[in-house]
Amino acid sequence: MSSRVDSINKIIRDFETVPGVEGAALVSADGLMISSALPEIEQEMVAAISAAMLSLGEKATNELNRGNLLEIYVKSDRGYTLLTAVGENALFLVLAKAESQIGLIFMDMKRMAESLIKIL
Amino acid sequence: MSSRVDSINKIIRDFETVPGVEGAALVSADGLMISSALPEIEQEMVAAISAAMLSLGEKATNELNRGNLLEIYVKSDRGYTLLTAVGENALFLVLAKAESQIGLIFMDMKRMAESLIKIL
Repeated sequence: MSSRVDSINKIIRDFETVPGVEGAALVSADGLMISSALPEIEQEMVAAISAAMLSLGEKATNELNRGNLLEIYVKSDRGYTLLTAVGENALFLVLAKAESQIGLIFMDMKRMAESLIKIL
Repeated sequence: MSSRVDSINKIIRDFETVPGVEGAALVSADGLMISSALPEIEQEMVAAISAAMLSLGEKATNELNRGNLLEIYVKSDRGYTLLTAVGENALFLVLAKAESQIGLIFMDMKRMAESLIKIL
């Protein structure tokens, strides 16, 4: 029987097979990496920045009376960085190519977040 | 002859006529409101949060080797908060309805940012 950690790692690794996706990670709301399938980058820094962005995004939507935060995307000339909350204690980070179908990837992220909430 | 401030205010106010747009603001990179046509909200707080988000977005794209930041969107259940840099010293914030054509609004924001850079 696989452990909880194995199940989480499998979900994160499997997400890399979604078309356009270059990497994925699960990060705790306080900025620590839980599971990562990201290219060679500074993992700790990315986890901390992601958590801070989600927290600021939530603050912004609160201040602007825009209800609950659903997703954040950061577009840059080499692709997208996508963030979505996983319950109240974690977030799901995905890197996608510049020419990706972002709407489809966000739909998959939502489904994935629901599976992860059950495990966490 | 209209002053520089009047020209900026006019551009920001005019942006409210773009379909789906509920409000717009020009914020300095250090988080101060330059010109605002936002609904009744805590203006100073929103300016500060927007600047912090853009700065974090730039940090994230750097760490993730994703080139230059182009745009950020925060989707919540009552609509979108859109951010784009205006040169190196300012950012353009737009609030849009949930059912908006975000791609079109971002195109208009880019055009607007180019006009604003010339004035700033």
